[in-house]
Amino acid sequence: MGIVLVGGRIVTAVDSYQADLRIEGEQIVAIGYDLEHPGDERILVDGCLLFPGGIDPHTHFDLPVGNISTADDFESGTKAAILGGTTTILDYATQFRGETLKAATLNWHRKADGRSYTDYGFHMAVTDWNMQVAQEMSMLVLKEGITSFKFYMAYKHTLQVDDESLLQALGQAKECGALVCVHCENGDVVYELVRQARAKGQTTPAYHPLTRPVTAEKEATSRVIALAQIAQAPVYIVHLTSEDALQVVTAAKLRGTQVYAETCPQYLLLNETCYQAEGFNGAKYVLSPPLRSRQDQESLWSGLRTGLLDTIATDHCAFNFVGHKDLGLTDFSLIPNGAPGVETRMGLMYTYGVVPGKISMNQFVNYTSTQAAKLFGLFPRKGTLAPGSDADITVWDPNGDSVLSVETLHQAVDYTPYEGFQQNGQVKHVFLRGRQVVREGQLHESQPRGVYLSRKSLPQKKG
Amino acid sequence: MGIVLVGGRIVTAVDSYQADLRIEGEQIVAIGYDLEHPGDERILVDGCLLFPGGIDPHTHFDLPVGNISTADDFESGTKAAILGGTTTILDYATQFRGETLKAATLNWHRKADGRSYTDYGFHMAVTDWNMQVAQEMSMLVLKEGITSFKFYMAYKHTLQVDDESLLQALGQAKECGALVCVHCENGDVVYELVRQARAKGQTTPAYHPLTRPVTAEKEATSRVIALAQIAQAPVYIVHLTSEDALQVVTAAKLRGTQVYAETCPQYLLLNETCYQAEGFNGAKYVLSPPLRSRQDQESLWSGLRTGLLDTIATDHCAFNFVGHKDLGLTDFSLIPNGAPGVETRMGLMYTYGVVPGKISMNQFVNYTSTQAAKLFGLFPRKGTLAPGSDADITVWDPNGDSVLSVETLHQAVDYTPYEGFQQNGQVKHVFLRGRQVVREGQLHESQPRGVYLSRKSLPQKKG
Amino acid sequence: MGIVLVGGRIVTAVDSYQADLRIEGEQIVAIGYDLEHPGDERILVDGCLLFPGGIDPHTHFDLPVGNISTADDFESGTKAAILGGTTTILDYATQFRGETLKAATLNWHRKADGRSYTDYGFHMAVTDWNMQVAQEMSMLVLKEGITSFKFYMAYKHTLQVDDESLLQALGQAKECGALVCVHCENGDVVYELVRQARAKGQTTPAYHPLTRPVTAEKEATSRVIALAQIAQAPVYIVHLTSEDALQVVTAAKLRGTQVYAETCPQYLLLNETCYQAEGFNGAKYVLSPPLRSRQDQESLWSGLRTGLLDTIATDHCAFNFVGHKDLGLTDFSLIPNGAPGVETRMGLMYTYGVVPGKISMNQFVNYTSTQAAKLFGLFPRKGTLAPGSDADITVWDPNGDSVLSVETLHQAVDYTPYEGFQQNGQVKHVFLRGRQVVREGQLHESQPRGVYLSRKSLPQKKG
Amino acid sequence: MGIVLVGGRIVTAVDSYQADLRIEGEQIVAIGYDLEHPGDERILVDGCLLFPGGIDPHTHFDLPVGNISTADDFESGTKAAILGGTTTILDYATQFRGETLKAATLNWHRKADGRSYTDYGFHMAVTDWNMQVAQEMSMLVLKEGITSFKFYMAYKHTLQVDDESLLQALGQAKECGALVCVHCENGDVVYELVRQARAKGQTTPAYHPLTRPVTAEKEATSRVIALAQIAQAPVYIVHLTSEDALQVVTAAKLRGTQVYAETCPQYLLLNETCYQAEGFNGAKYVLSPPLRSRQDQESLWSGLRTGLLDTIATDHCAFNFVGHKDLGLTDFSLIPNGAPGVETRMGLMYTYGVVPGKISMNQFVNYTSTQAAKLFGLFPRKGTLAPGSDADITVWDPNGDSVLSVETLHQAVDYTPYEGFQQNGQVKHVFLRGRQVVREGQLHESQPRGVYLSRKSLPQKKG
Repeated sequence: MGIVLVGGRIVTAVDSYQADLRIEGEQIVAIGYDLEHPGDERILVDGCLLFPGGIDPHTHFDLPVGNISTADDFESGTKAAILGGTTTILDYATQFRGETLKAATLNWHRKADGRSYTDYGFHMAVTDWNMQVAQEMSMLVLKEGITSFKFYMAYKHTLQVDDESLLQALGQAKECGALVCVHCENGDVVYELVRQARAKGQTTPAYHPLTRPVTAEKEATSRVIALAQIAQAPVYIVHLTSEDALQVVTAAKLRGTQVYAETCPQYLLLNETCYQAEGFNGAKYVLSPPLRSRQDQESLWSGLRTGLLDTIATDHCAFNFVGHKDLGLTDFSLIPNGAPGVETRMGLMYTYGVVPGKISMNQFVNYTSTQAAKLFGLFPRKGTLAPGSDADITVWDPNGDSVLSVETLHQAVDYTPYEGFQQNGQVKHVFLRGRQVVREGQLHESQPRGVYLSRKSLPQKKG
Repeated sequence: MGIVLVGGRIVTAVDSYQADLRIEGEQIVAIGYDLEHPGDERILVDGCLLFPGGIDPHTHFDLPVGNISTADDFESGTKAAILGGTTTILDYATQFRGETLKAATLNWHRKADGRSYTDYGFHMAVTDWNMQVAQEMSMLVLKEGITSFKFYMAYKHTLQVDDESLLQALGQAKECGALVCVHCENGDVVYELVRQARAKGQTTPAYHPLTRPVTAEKEATSRVIALAQIAQAPVYIVHLTSEDALQVVTAAKLRGTQVYAETCPQYLLLNETCYQAEGFNGAKYVLSPPLRSRQDQESLWSGLRTGLLDTIATDHCAFNFVGHKDLGLTDFSLIPNGAPGVETRMGLMYTYGVVPGKISMNQFVNYTSTQAAKLFGLFPRKGTLAPGSDADITVWDPNGDSVLSVETLHQAVDYTPYEGFQQNGQVKHVFLRGRQVVREGQLHESQPRGVYLSRKSLPQKKG
Repeated sequence: MGIVLVGGRIVTAVDSYQADLRIEGEQIVAIGYDLEHPGDERILVDGCLLFPGGIDPHTHFDLPVGNISTADDFESGTKAAILGGTTTILDYATQFRGETLKAATLNWHRKADGRSYTDYGFHMAVTDWNMQVAQEMSMLVLKEGITSFKFYMAYKHTLQVDDESLLQALGQAKECGALVCVHCENGDVVYELVRQARAKGQTTPAYHPLTRPVTAEKEATSRVIALAQIAQAPVYIVHLTSEDALQVVTAAKLRGTQVYAETCPQYLLLNETCYQAEGFNGAKYVLSPPLRSRQDQESLWSGLRTGLLDTIATDHCAFNFVGHKDLGLTDFSLIPNGAPGVETRMGLMYTYGVVPGKISMNQFVNYTSTQAAKLFGLFPRKGTLAPGSDADITVWDPNGDSVLSVETLHQAVDYTPYEGFQQNGQVKHVFLRGRQVVREGQLHESQPRGVYLSRKSLPQKKG
Repeated sequence: MGIVLVGGRIVTAVDSYQADLRIEGEQIVAIGYDLEHPGDERILVDGCLLFPGGIDPHTHFDLPVGNISTADDFESGTKAAILGGTTTILDYATQFRGETLKAATLNWHRKADGRSYTDYGFHMAVTDWNMQVAQEMSMLVLKEGITSFKFYMAYKHTLQVDDESLLQALGQAKECGALVCVHCENGDVVYELVRQARAKGQTTPAYHPLTRPVTAEKEATSRVIALAQIAQAPVYIVHLTSEDALQVVTAAKLRGTQVYAETCPQYLLLNETCYQAEGFNGAKYVLSPPLRSRQDQESLWSGLRTGLLDTIATDHCAFNFVGHKDLGLTDFSLIPNGAPGVETRMGLMYTYGVVPGKISMNQFVNYTSTQAAKLFGLFPRKGTLAPGSDADITVWDPNGDSVLSVETLHQAVDYTPYEGFQQNGQVKHVFLRGRQVVREGQLHESQPRGVYLSRKSLPQKKG
């Protein structure tokens, strides 16, 4: 017995056509016409678009930061995700200084296992590199299906690693088939500029972007690409925000470097004018790298249209305005960095990307799902609509406009940076491995059924 | 009653998975498992790859050039094409000076109708632009399904149009939804350099590339993009050959210009050393633009890998070595320009692109079929494997190596520039709109069944 | 008996030092201390700057344009020039269609000889190229000391030459040691855009810049550089106006191309907002290429600071607002193109370049005098302050501010585009070949004493 | 009573003319004709070129490196310098870890005072940055005339400073009018690559360049320019070696960044093939950054021709092949880095730059003298031939070819990397502040008469 979705339009990263889709068990088994078997459940999806379930390759659920933790844990975060059309998330498990990667992995399994409404995998963020950790990297790839490792060039004295570590890590990753992900901002620059700002009594959120200039991002992006070229290893730039950084990536791609870049809705839809918000409200946009100029926004859209960017993630890292963000009320440098977004990504990209024609519907699918699956070892199990793939399907009703508001969203955080933004269309149903988790926009499964995803390696470029 | 292809691997521009495919009438009706209906024919394709039938968007069949015509007409050319895995060709119908576009269209229908083994459409090459021709352009788009128009910046005093015409044509194309295709070489430069060469008694084929330098291509590419930017019209660069021209295209794409670029197997696989061939053999490679350096070859592969090139066409324009090429025995400028390639394109790109990992299998499909369908108004009828699409399918057997030779090819021309080249894998079967035209590598249909394709317009970029 | 200028500061393109300067006859004979000979005239120039007399390498005096001629002839134009600190001008003698270059040369000598207050030379503007004219080019270099030849890529159907002519001319110039100067705008584009504008009834001066977009300049600049690269000949871009064109020039210089570029005060100090002037006043700024954006202005200053631009000329081409410009009262395309500037160049560049530190004082000298002398075969006779050089000296008093106005200027035209502009400092004295032509800012010589300058060839780059 | 040099050709960075030059005391007092006073000494220099005495802004005399010191101390080094036509050197005084800048200054005065044949100044190389050192920087500028400070991005664990220090230093330099000089190679990269090479038993000199790739230089150059942009401070790149780094510098200059770059004869005349020298001879070329490819050499010449490079220094840092270099006989990483060049710079640049036309004679003067004087606060006292300037004059006889050899050079080191190189022309006389130190190519003064030069600040760019 299966399920047949009847009357919809199948949209992949390349195709778009009217057809029915049949699910059996956890997988898609056929796409076409006249697919129904006796006993099948038939679900009418006339006029709807069927997208591969969204994949958000960049979240921070239940992440301790100083004395607090991010507002969303795996339960609230993935519930919000799936209601927003995302069926897989990749969270950044984080090694704390002195910890082994094994310990960090176990720690993250404790946070996630049995509590996730979406399927999930882990990247491993490494903050304490040494030769033993290098060995563990290979183990995680082989045994744990953790095939991507993040390094920070920012956050001096806490998360930042030096270039020697980074170069070693790229070399090790190349050897064991892992992909190195990098937060590209020059942490020394930020540290010094924050010091200068504080010394001058510049304490409001408006100083956050001024102490993290585009040049610091461009520099770090350029640097890590140089290291990757020397190591002949692939590299993935997380949350690229600026025209300058995009130009650096483009030049490297043209030279044949295997470099990939992610951007986020906040960098496409919001800009530096947000820091002028009244009172302390600018704190809602204190995230790193910070929001940039309107011209940077246009350049990012251009990078998506041209195919020089690879993915749209959220960097969902939610802190409450009251109780978290206000730790920095008198000193912007104490504001926890980050903002929520896991629930709103698909809708925003559809509304502000596809509807006005900034990207095609195929590109929408590519950036919100397919490419992440390919780069992070989940394809073709995830990231497409095809026989044999997991039946992770977002049924999108292009009709029905709404207005985003913290009142109606499900993220466990007390604000959204998109308050008042229009959304065109809406999530109607969501299927996760064949099971209907969302029905008519409402959570239909009371229990979290997400499973852990052991991932494959990124194929290295030949020749 | 249908046909089910069983046990193959479906490959599109994004997907690659094991599944069966069912055809009914002219179309694909389902892809998946357990698709067979009673009475269906079952064809086992275990271990084979199923590609969307190849689309070659650049051929010159039965084209008069001076007192001769190209060696392949529609019958021989499309027979060779389909045996090589290509199911659709787009030929350049050509307006001769003084002729109306209507006359040129009729002329080309006379050449092609009832004689083509593949489906076919026409671009219209315009050599005599004026306001009346501008009106006809709109008519051809609306009434004839001819939605792309070619202009030559080369061939002074015969085909070349001036910038004023080109700018007007781009404006008209924008208005009526047509796509302008351009041969980018500065014809004035070539004319003068040929004059200088002849004045110095430089008459051998080795002088062909020296009188058509990369700079002349780069210049014209840069110029037509400037014109397209002024007209805010899309433009398609035919047969791009060089790193310099690719850089020009890339910069324009990043600026948001709707520019597309085609390259050809000869520019990827052959280079300027061919002109050093013994005796008059260099004449076999006299085509325009000419073959370039090894570094240019690498840059083109890099452009394909990065997605900055859009299509791989052949510019099939065959002349016999004996009887045609030798018209220029004592003066290279009299050698008819062009070379054959319609039969060998798919095999060469598979062998030298996919096998060594220079492009992925998905990119192979994209460049040999999908993108051409999208840019030239045939998608999703052509260019993909999906329910509802025409059942144009190339079943590729990855096993079985062979060596290319004019002895075994079906093109009606007395040489191939790829004589002695290895091919990995081979065309096993080809289906054209559900009908098996090639079986086990042999022509299975004695009659040409190709139909004329009325094409849609290219969607213009919004906002 | 000589003249000793005592107490001033000598400024060349590289030096700046306090010293006296002694003149004997037409030349500088010594610079240093204690130079006075018995009988010498001593002129105190305490606190003043001594610059090499300005060289304006781009004027159009007494040029017929349609039924009218430019407002300034050689007498009024050079009188204005020398009062503004310019001691040498290079005027564009112009071959009219059908005319020989010899005839054009004679024609220009008739206009200039005996009527010029500055020394003067001719470039030759060629509008009708053929093989006989090519021969004449060599003759002019050898016999007439005319070593630079201008070609127009703009002004279709009147002055414009095609690329074949341009390439031949570059080749011929290379052979005979001449320098080709080019007006870089794509005339076909302008012609078509003007046609479109007129067809839509767009007739005011505001449409002038819209029909001559930056892209048309960038394109032509890029094209002529390509031609120069093919011919391996040097080329000089007249009146470069935009960031885009500067980038093209810069890239070519880095590739080793011998390309030089001139800009003008109007492109540094005025911008496109001028075309919004009330009523028909925008016509005062109808010159070609047109004024550009503020960002272009900044880029040109940056090009001067970096040394990627070579000269600052005026393109002085004066038309009266009443009687000339108003020919285009109902159709901007009939407004004669050009504006005056020969008198104001030195003061404006000092005031808006040197005073605010946008260029150094040495660069000021380099761009207003030295480089022009070097490129156009006058160095070291002109363009520097050194023993053996002509005693062409502009004594500049850095004190004394004034306001520019048509009321006080000496140009024979009824407006200045710089009306109301501040000037810091002023011309105190001017010496031409040792003779004091301007004293205390007033004309001191009643007769024009300028001589014709037979010029040397530009040294071609070796190896 | 003075000295008159009669019959020579005066060459400055802009001029070149026949004239006499009169010296009185330490200075030039007049240039011109008929300058002789009663009692003057007259020296005939017919047919000779008079250049401003060379300034070498990058030497390492008497520098301790590990347990050894560089082979040339101030006495031998400056004697060689002045015999080679260089009258001023700027040596890198070096702060050792834990030392104050004051101590380092005193230390260097002890090495140099009374022992130098040329005039000399100090840069200060800072290896241990902190807030107290920042204060000292300002003191040195004000009190000691040390206005340039060097930082190393290379040499991890010994000389290398981190980006935070560098950014602070740039800020401090901006405030006190100092110029920051930077050795641009990513020391982390080098450290790791050396580790890898040693781990693989790669111990010969051939591995030196492989562990210091161009990418490491490009990266560091790009990074320090980013830091300079953030600090809005000028920066000077020492010994730039590669096309990649030059492109980075060029892009920054065009953006208006006040960045200057130095190259050296070894990067223009030698290349990576030197490391293939037989036996251990490659060690002679172990310097950092290492020698590069032929294409890099061409790019550097192009940078000089275009004016995008600023100075030609030597980085003279001599170690004997026997006794010094052989410390690394079994491990290339122990070879002391550096090579001699202070004596051969002027002759090589004349021979391989001016004679074949790669740079003009004016550029030769500019790069070997004038620009260094301007950038390092010595102009116009040094760096030009003008009244009022120090009479530092190199009289160059363009006739007389010779062959360079360690046998005939005066540097106190047992080899020259230019053994067997031709030299066209020769140093005839050298004057230092009016005193003839070299006569007919021989040392004429037995005592070192060089004085310490207290330098001015670099003018900061306005607006």
